[in-house]
Amino acid sequence: MTSPPSTDHRLDDHRLDLQRRQRLGMVEAIWGEHKTADQLARIIDRLQAAGELAFATRVSEEKAAAVRALIPALPLRHYPAARCLVSPALPASDPARGRVAVLSGGTSDLPVASETQLALACHGVAAELMLDVGVAGLHRLLDRLEALRTADVLIACAGMEGALPTVLAGLLPQPVIGVPVAVGYGVSAGGKAALHGMLASCAPGLTVVNIDNGYGAAMACLRILGLRGGADRDRR
Amino acid sequence: MTSPPSTDHRLDDHRLDLQRRQRLGMVEAIWGEHKTADQLARIIDRLQAAGELAFATRVSEEKAAAVRALIPALPLRHYPAARCLVSPALPASDPARGRVAVLSGGTSDLPVASETQLALACHGVAAELMLDVGVAGLHRLLDRLEALRTADVLIACAGMEGALPTVLAGLLPQPVIGVPVAVGYGVSAGGKAALHGMLASCAPGLTVVNIDNGYGAAMACLRILGLRGGADRDRR
Amino acid sequence: MTSPPSTDHRLDDHRLDLQRRQRLGMVEAIWGEHKTADQLARIIDRLQAAGELAFATRVSEEKAAAVRALIPALPLRHYPAARCLVSPALPASDPARGRVAVLSGGTSDLPVASETQLALACHGVAAELMLDVGVAGLHRLLDRLEALRTADVLIACAGMEGALPTVLAGLLPQPVIGVPVAVGYGVSAGGKAALHGMLASCAPGLTVVNIDNGYGAAMACLRILGLRGGADRDRR
Amino acid sequence: MTSPPSTDHRLDDHRLDLQRRQRLGMVEAIWGEHKTADQLARIIDRLQAAGELAFATRVSEEKAAAVRALIPALPLRHYPAARCLVSPALPASDPARGRVAVLSGGTSDLPVASETQLALACHGVAAELMLDVGVAGLHRLLDRLEALRTADVLIACAGMEGALPTVLAGLLPQPVIGVPVAVGYGVSAGGKAALHGMLASCAPGLTVVNIDNGYGAAMACLRILGLRGGADRDRR
Amino acid sequence: MTSPPSTDHRLDDHRLDLQRRQRLGMVEAIWGEHKTADQLARIIDRLQAAGELAFATRVSEEKAAAVRALIPALPLRHYPAARCLVSPALPASDPARGRVAVLSGGTSDLPVASETQLALACHGVAAELMLDVGVAGLHRLLDRLEALRTADVLIACAGMEGALPTVLAGLLPQPVIGVPVAVGYGVSAGGKAALHGMLASCAPGLTVVNIDNGYGAAMACLRILGLRGGADRDRR
Amino acid sequence: MTSPPSTDHRLDDHRLDLQRRQRLGMVEAIWGEHKTADQLARIIDRLQAAGELAFATRVSEEKAAAVRALIPALPLRHYPAARCLVSPALPASDPARGRVAVLSGGTSDLPVASETQLALACHGVAAELMLDVGVAGLHRLLDRLEALRTADVLIACAGMEGALPTVLAGLLPQPVIGVPVAVGYGVSAGGKAALHGMLASCAPGLTVVNIDNGYGAAMACLRILGLRGGADRDRR
Amino acid sequence: MTSPPSTDHRLDDHRLDLQRRQRLGMVEAIWGEHKTADQLARIIDRLQAAGELAFATRVSEEKAAAVRALIPALPLRHYPAARCLVSPALPASDPARGRVAVLSGGTSDLPVASETQLALACHGVAAELMLDVGVAGLHRLLDRLEALRTADVLIACAGMEGALPTVLAGLLPQPVIGVPVAVGYGVSAGGKAALHGMLASCAPGLTVVNIDNGYGAAMACLRILGLRGGADRDRR
Amino acid sequence: MTSPPSTDHRLDDHRLDLQRRQRLGMVEAIWGEHKTADQLARIIDRLQAAGELAFATRVSEEKAAAVRALIPALPLRHYPAARCLVSPALPASDPARGRVAVLSGGTSDLPVASETQLALACHGVAAELMLDVGVAGLHRLLDRLEALRTADVLIACAGMEGALPTVLAGLLPQPVIGVPVAVGYGVSAGGKAALHGMLASCAPGLTVVNIDNGYGAAMACLRILGLRGGADRDRR
Repeated sequence: MTSPPSTDHRLDDHRLDLQRRQRLGMVEAIWGEHKTADQLARIIDRLQAAGELAFATRVSEEKAAAVRALIPALPLRHYPAARCLVSPALPASDPARGRVAVLSGGTSDLPVASETQLALACHGVAAELMLDVGVAGLHRLLDRLEALRTADVLIACAGMEGALPTVLAGLLPQPVIGVPVAVGYGVSAGGKAALHGMLASCAPGLTVVNIDNGYGAAMACLRILGLRGGADRDRR
Repeated sequence: MTSPPSTDHRLDDHRLDLQRRQRLGMVEAIWGEHKTADQLARIIDRLQAAGELAFATRVSEEKAAAVRALIPALPLRHYPAARCLVSPALPASDPARGRVAVLSGGTSDLPVASETQLALACHGVAAELMLDVGVAGLHRLLDRLEALRTADVLIACAGMEGALPTVLAGLLPQPVIGVPVAVGYGVSAGGKAALHGMLASCAPGLTVVNIDNGYGAAMACLRILGLRGGADRDRR
Repeated sequence: MTSPPSTDHRLDDHRLDLQRRQRLGMVEAIWGEHKTADQLARIIDRLQAAGELAFATRVSEEKAAAVRALIPALPLRHYPAARCLVSPALPASDPARGRVAVLSGGTSDLPVASETQLALACHGVAAELMLDVGVAGLHRLLDRLEALRTADVLIACAGMEGALPTVLAGLLPQPVIGVPVAVGYGVSAGGKAALHGMLASCAPGLTVVNIDNGYGAAMACLRILGLRGGADRDRR
Repeated sequence: MTSPPSTDHRLDDHRLDLQRRQRLGMVEAIWGEHKTADQLARIIDRLQAAGELAFATRVSEEKAAAVRALIPALPLRHYPAARCLVSPALPASDPARGRVAVLSGGTSDLPVASETQLALACHGVAAELMLDVGVAGLHRLLDRLEALRTADVLIACAGMEGALPTVLAGLLPQPVIGVPVAVGYGVSAGGKAALHGMLASCAPGLTVVNIDNGYGAAMACLRILGLRGGADRDRR
Repeated sequence: MTSPPSTDHRLDDHRLDLQRRQRLGMVEAIWGEHKTADQLARIIDRLQAAGELAFATRVSEEKAAAVRALIPALPLRHYPAARCLVSPALPASDPARGRVAVLSGGTSDLPVASETQLALACHGVAAELMLDVGVAGLHRLLDRLEALRTADVLIACAGMEGALPTVLAGLLPQPVIGVPVAVGYGVSAGGKAALHGMLASCAPGLTVVNIDNGYGAAMACLRILGLRGGADRDRR
Repeated sequence: MTSPPSTDHRLDDHRLDLQRRQRLGMVEAIWGEHKTADQLARIIDRLQAAGELAFATRVSEEKAAAVRALIPALPLRHYPAARCLVSPALPASDPARGRVAVLSGGTSDLPVASETQLALACHGVAAELMLDVGVAGLHRLLDRLEALRTADVLIACAGMEGALPTVLAGLLPQPVIGVPVAVGYGVSAGGKAALHGMLASCAPGLTVVNIDNGYGAAMACLRILGLRGGADRDRR
Repeated sequence: MTSPPSTDHRLDDHRLDLQRRQRLGMVEAIWGEHKTADQLARIIDRLQAAGELAFATRVSEEKAAAVRALIPALPLRHYPAARCLVSPALPASDPARGRVAVLSGGTSDLPVASETQLALACHGVAAELMLDVGVAGLHRLLDRLEALRTADVLIACAGMEGALPTVLAGLLPQPVIGVPVAVGYGVSAGGKAALHGMLASCAPGLTVVNIDNGYGAAMACLRILGLRGGADRDRR
Repeated sequence: MTSPPSTDHRLDDHRLDLQRRQRLGMVEAIWGEHKTADQLARIIDRLQAAGELAFATRVSEEKAAAVRALIPALPLRHYPAARCLVSPALPASDPARGRVAVLSGGTSDLPVASETQLALACHGVAAELMLDVGVAGLHRLLDRLEALRTADVLIACAGMEGALPTVLAGLLPQPVIGVPVAVGYGVSAGGKAALHGMLASCAPGLTVVNIDNGYGAAMACLRILGLRGGADRDRR
């Protein structure tokens, strides 16, 4: 147990959990917000060497460009709407994995909804985005109701008062995952009002993930899709 | 400016604002929660002497009985659902003052909705109560939509996530006053989730009063009804 | 739109949502905490008349006895550990509906875990309770790991810091629903620390319901079990 | 329900609620804070094509210039004090729609008060601004009292402790809408102290909107003015 | 440093700070809320033996009777409006110590205002109580303005939104001490809205003590009165 | 994985962690607050059978009597000041385990300080209690400074603003453990002000446990005393 | 009551309260944080024209330079440590107005302590600054105790846990005004821990102003100094 | 007590506590966040002159360069991972002072873990860093368990839900100090969820320091190591 205290530890001790995909069947996301381009490049490089997909969230276009400049040989792609960086390419989508709808109440929820969709795509699940079906214009939601009946899982992203998943869960029997979004001002700044609205919901059986946690909602969806029977069940 | 400091001041210095009805056209509610039966009896007695209606909120049946025992000559009536005490009788209702609907999402909101209705009745305004039109069972609300179009003002009481006034204000053009109700548990305990949900609402033009403030919503409604033209306007 | 304002509205306007079982396949729980024995008895009586199961949560033994005295002809049963009242008898459990484990970290979480188990039993789903598998004694949890691999859904109830669902979701690939429990003192009083710990969890795909919401976790579980293929899917 | 997951969805699914003006009689504001110039330009362009007024809030002068550069053919006007963008020109003001006063306690409340005034102007309602009538210098407010008696609706913007609407509602019988403003420091930072002060107000019938929500206050005012009788009522 | 750990320590180690009156010129209040009658009786007995005045706050009538039964020989007096217990008698009031006005907005603030007045009386300062001069009925306050000009210190107790001290400090140049009071409901429950309103006040030079801390306001007033020159200054 | 869902699970699944004493060298406390006398009696009975000490916190005298009536054969002792129940007798204290001082600022902190002392006594550590050494009367603390220099560990319990451990840690070099106490009112109600004051302390190296967690402070102290060399170290 | 809604109101309606100095004897501070250089220049120009001192707080060096460029003819002086702008020169200090000490616990409190000192200087009161007398190094404070006994008023600025005014008020009998400072991190970020520590203080008679409100503390001090007898009293 | 109020006080009154190292055996850290390069340079210069080690935390590379430019003669070293500045060189590490492990759950905790390690190195204690042993991948922690048994003190840094120290303290008997880290988003933003999770921990004897307070954890560790017997004890 000796270590040189005057040396600057940076990332050398970052030990990637490469067994997670095997154990849980999920790609471990790299949370890009507090990491430098240098840290991201090193982690992606090591995942690549291990034959794993790299999926980094909360990466701006500028930071993505800086990462690409550091590891130009790797096939990185940045998705600006989702603010994510993926390497190498996404796998082909497999319709047998299930049908997922990602809904949101407004354009401002787009980054979170897109992160959710992309995280599912990393696992071969194609999800449909339905933007602007918020509750203030209820008819827009009711128009889509029949189409939504065919989905296996519904993921509803909402900021402000976060009423969308409540209304959905009162109308449809599928699993509904609420994702509070940190848009808004005053009491809704930071997403707390939306989070509390979803948790307090009087609609039965709505579950919730952390504010802005599109990746988490996608992983919860994957856990649920794993129950759909047939080949999926053997994977576990 | 001398006063006997060793004397116990109780209510002798309570100066009632008897001009308020003249100035604002509103009965001043007596907030009964922290007052003893003795204090309530004295205040009601003095209002009676001044020819004013007494309207006390948050009075339990037990406390009401104790007040009645102290001033048996006065025509007190206790409304248990609204937890209010009124003396003397309510004025006759005047349909010309306007049409008001008081809506709520569940039986637990009944005390607040009833306080609202009773406070309006103290001013001659008959309001209709519509209980159990919450958003988790949206069809119940949509069934009533045509009836609601004829109301002048909508007052929506809701606990839990408080989505009812948002949905109403997205569907109808009238003034909508949201009253958060302190029922619920976990994040909705105390009514904060409902309050924040209403304030954060994406429906335009929804206004809000304090948690459980049925009296306040009624007074806001009176202020609005005062604009309905005709005789009302001259009163100001 | 006229209503007698001086009449005491109690429960006459309580309109039960009898279509919910059809629409969502879920029994609507009656939240017993703020309701009187009288209110509960009326609601149960009307559900009985409609041929529906009545499931009331947060009912103490005393209140249950009072309800039973009001409607002695009905086959009510009170479950003290779960603090719930059910009428008539629970349906037979159907193993084909899926395997569910309800875990908790301590004896103090028992009421919430039992409410979860009972709410599932109301829908014919038999769930196994595993108490005292908290993270402070990690070996107790690791001992059960193989048994847990066969469950379809894991529901983890935890107060204090709420770490149990995080550890579970890091070890197993199934859907994990976290239920924060309002036991604890100081910063964990009211269950907020557990709720935030679960939402902030670094384990991917954990979803959460409101504090103490055992019924809600059970309904979320039912939504998920509905995906298990076969006969269940046709019900929708 | 198929969608190409690797495509970047931006705004193509943004579906504008063009029926809102018909249904509610209100222009839907575009919340500009989290939107890029590119997103704003597309939305304004589509509203223009549909013959609707575009009203975007929280748009800085820089962002307004960027929007104008993207759609130079459209008659955009930026109002710097209100931080709003309007296209095409404001409608002529119609004195018959009612008299509104927008009051504020200090220069720092100007952006919110101006947004309120401008949102009313978008609907043909001319509102008078009265700045610097805060309660710390009570005489300034009392000097204006007679002028205020002629207004139909009073909108009071206040930061810090937010006492202005309380004092107003204690003196005058009209509808008073409080708008908490997020100016201040320490306990008043973010506007929570003003919001809570207004909600807790002992003045009867004061209603409140979210912090800084000038647009919301204006829409609430429009709903109220709709009751003023005559031609307005037929519009609904 | 040895102590018998299995012994029950109760009050034997309670060491009273008998030098405080000398050092600060202030009686140390005994906070009665969490103390048993037995603990209070012991402390009062020891103060009596040391020739000191005992002043215990937050003592109900029931607890006061129990204390009196334990030490019947001592000249205890209970002040029910102030919820305080004093022994032996209050000193004679000394007009030369200064003129103090204690104002409050409503009957519900009476316990705190009375505790303030009584704590001053323990030091020979006679303070005048003015109840029901809240800001919702501003004219009542303005009527008293001239009388208030002669006071040395103004202490303003207020619950709800706590605007009274703000209005006072905007009108008068004396020291104004705000005491938030824990009456109210919803956002004002517990006194936080009043506290924040006073701290956020735009009136210059208002200072604040903890919620319900009438004793603290009285002691702050004593510190200020000590500056009034003449004999007082020599006491320090 | 089958379990009878209609059976009432109470305590049969409560699995005690009897290995903890071996693994950590610490008695596991039974948190008595939310447990019934019946639950406590069962747990104590089983610990007794396993030859383990039972230590239950937050047990009132009434509940202790009820437990004793259920298991009259067991040598239970209740410590009223600490609100704890111990069975069988405390071990003899071993001076070689180290010197500990438990300090507190007032009589109201006594229950927490006593729980700390008793939890140490359960492990053979005799700790000295020093009550009423709060910072408002600094000289009382300074008088004891030399005596405190001989302690191995200082545990400081404080409510209100919680300044005692800060002052101690600024004067002495030993480990100082702060225990916030939930006494106080207004902003200090519930102990949050004391907790935050200790965490924010500018004195270097102060550590903190949860509010009112006397047992936790004692266990932290045991962990530290385990480092004192000699025989203690071999125990691990 | 007509106003051109399409005109941009900026500052034309800003009505300065020029009577405040007469009424309260206090200069009204201009809160510079949210104001532009342009707004500041206009206000200062008008105060100058009215013969009043201008005192603007929270003005950075950059903004001060911009103001100076706009109104080069005026004798502006910027005080960088206090972040304030004053025009014209400060009045001569008058020792007869009283002796004030402004204390602080650390260099980071300097801006607030300096603002306090400067605001007093604007009224002819010279205050002594004593920096770095925090409680973690108690001896530094005790060394100064005798010097502090001669002050009329003590103003104590403190961030982190804010214990300085508590210790002061426990040792000295003068008025003590606590100013919480928004320095710190974690639980002390924003100054809330210091504010609550001061309000919760067990030292009798400590009063508090808003976080970082050096100006407010100075004005409270002026109100107190006004009682010092002699010529001051006549001014009121 | 006279001071020139119009002079700008900056740092001249900053009095360093040079006796602290003697009294407590700890270097006083300079909190660099709110200090300018100029202020830092002056303080370091004076410490250097007094023969003391200077240790400044939260100093960016840019600010470090600016400080170095101001005092080029001093042997400053900046540690970028720890964001600290040290002058002169670190002392040699002394293995006899004890064995310390600093653990963390992720790369984002690196700055805090490194600050802890460096603060220990300033006192001659070499601590080993173990990054990425978070609880979501429990096996990584269990793999290290035997190595951790030989440490004297364990310091666990964790953001998000902060479960790492709970798991550690449930497995090992040594002192465990938890350091919450302000990384995360939504409910974990700012580190409050991690802090509350650690305080609420069901693992016995875990103590906690403020969010991000790596220096504080190191000082607490030094206090504990001082008990390790032998030569260390004489130092006190």
